[in-house]
Amino acid sequence: MGTRPEQDDRFDTLAIVGVGLLGGSIALAARAQGAARRIVGIGRNRERLLKAKLAGVVDDVAVDLSSARDAGLVVVCTPVDRIVADVAAAASASPAALITDVGSVKGSVCRGVEQSTTPHGRFIGSHPLAGSEQQGWENATATLFQGRVCVLTPAESSCAEDVARLERFWGKLGMTVVRMSPEDHDRTLALTSHLPHAVASALAALLTAEDLTFAATGFRDTTRIAAGDADLWTPIFLNNAEAVTERIGQLARRLEQFRQALAAGDAGTVQRLLEEGRRGRESLNP
Amino acid sequence: MGTRPEQDDRFDTLAIVGVGLLGGSIALAARAQGAARRIVGIGRNRERLLKAKLAGVVDDVAVDLSSARDAGLVVVCTPVDRIVADVAAAASASPAALITDVGSVKGSVCRGVEQSTTPHGRFIGSHPLAGSEQQGWENATATLFQGRVCVLTPAESSCAEDVARLERFWGKLGMTVVRMSPEDHDRTLALTSHLPHAVASALAALLTAEDLTFAATGFRDTTRIAAGDADLWTPIFLNNAEAVTERIGQLARRLEQFRQALAAGDAGTVQRLLEEGRRGRESLNP
Repeated sequence: MGTRPEQDDRFDTLAIVGVGLLGGSIALAARAQGAARRIVGIGRNRERLLKAKLAGVVDDVAVDLSSARDAGLVVVCTPVDRIVADVAAAASASPAALITDVGSVKGSVCRGVEQSTTPHGRFIGSHPLAGSEQQGWENATATLFQGRVCVLTPAESSCAEDVARLERFWGKLGMTVVRMSPEDHDRTLALTSHLPHAVASALAALLTAEDLTFAATGFRDTTRIAAGDADLWTPIFLNNAEAVTERIGQLARRLEQFRQALAAGDAGTVQRLLEEGRRGRESLNP
Repeated sequence: MGTRPEQDDRFDTLAIVGVGLLGGSIALAARAQGAARRIVGIGRNRERLLKAKLAGVVDDVAVDLSSARDAGLVVVCTPVDRIVADVAAAASASPAALITDVGSVKGSVCRGVEQSTTPHGRFIGSHPLAGSEQQGWENATATLFQGRVCVLTPAESSCAEDVARLERFWGKLGMTVVRMSPEDHDRTLALTSHLPHAVASALAALLTAEDLTFAATGFRDTTRIAAGDADLWTPIFLNNAEAVTERIGQLARRLEQFRQALAAGDAGTVQRLLEEGRRGRESLNP
């Protein structure tokens, strides 16, 4: 396996299925980094797609996955509960294409693709850990992935050269790529992404109109991600239910420890629990 | 009660007891807004105070509250469990001064001052809803209070002119002033400030070294306030224990609802709970 010249790595056609915040940002970043010559945006709403083309986010648009047939790489950016079907459709349209996704859960997606009765071509799961509570390609930026981590979940059957090429693609977009099993990914992200969302949402839901004046930066930061689209997050949670319910249990036990210490006026335990939290948070700022 | 000319409102000497992030920011803001002619910083660590003077944060320093005797206004910015004693000391040193504090709880502080056997002069509780997980006057800024809310908790015995003057002081620093009873303040802040801190802390404490790579902006934002000083937060929690334990219970019940819906694969309930969280968060962005 010789070293390929750098230009070989550029995809002639990159197809993005689902041109929202992530899909749009991949398009912008891939163009900015010369990762693709031509970018086709595929979706269900032709009008929105044409606006994205007009805004220079994609070069061409289509409402049909058969338009992905010339693509060297197809990135499926649809909600978690639609990924398996969209990967199958892309693989049918373009059996030779490398296919990936950006779903926040990987176990159900990778199992679903593998068990799908339709051919699944050369699929490798990805999860770029970047995003925002904002939605739509209007909020997309070419720098969304800079300095962030992308998890790749190749199967044992994945071709090593495909994995390496996909790794180089995310690398060009500015990401550090980490390989994991889909199961390890889901267990870890249950803590680092799904649990914070559940907690932020529960906290935000307690707010009443009378409290608004008194919610300062602390409340705002702690609940920011709760503004995320419930339609996108519901399938994420349902597809990682086991790991998330376990994590909610862990958090609930810790909160209950804190509540009991407070109720008992046990300053030592309150201080120790807060100190453990502080150390956990500080470990994120090396 | 005639209208006073604007310059009358300037305090000749402003004493700040506890020159940390908040005390330092009050000093910088009061100078920038012409709210005081001379600012004395009072604290326990003379060396740190002298550095704050050298940095131009305060004009004079003292390690003894008797140095507040010339002050027209004393702002006590010490931790919640020291406020009552510091107010009493300031009132002894300077019986004619208007005295306030910046504590995050008001019930125990106001009751403590009122019941204190030493004279408590003209004390009115304040809580400027501004701050940061950062500490020390080195992080102080003159703009910390701009556009924020300050809660005032006057007693029935408070002199109306004192309340109005204190209101104008915080107003000059850029704050919108709201009057409340200490009890209403504590109940409301239990939700908007103390509960988020407890939750962020519990979440951050679950993080292990292996998870660090996978904690992106969502986890970081949700746990940011957990980096706050445990020494400052322990007395805040202990002094608002009843309201906070009740709020923790509310949050725990909501999380348990969510956990059960997930475990049952109940998409409708998961979506509804997330939607309620989204609406709560959106209500903060009018």
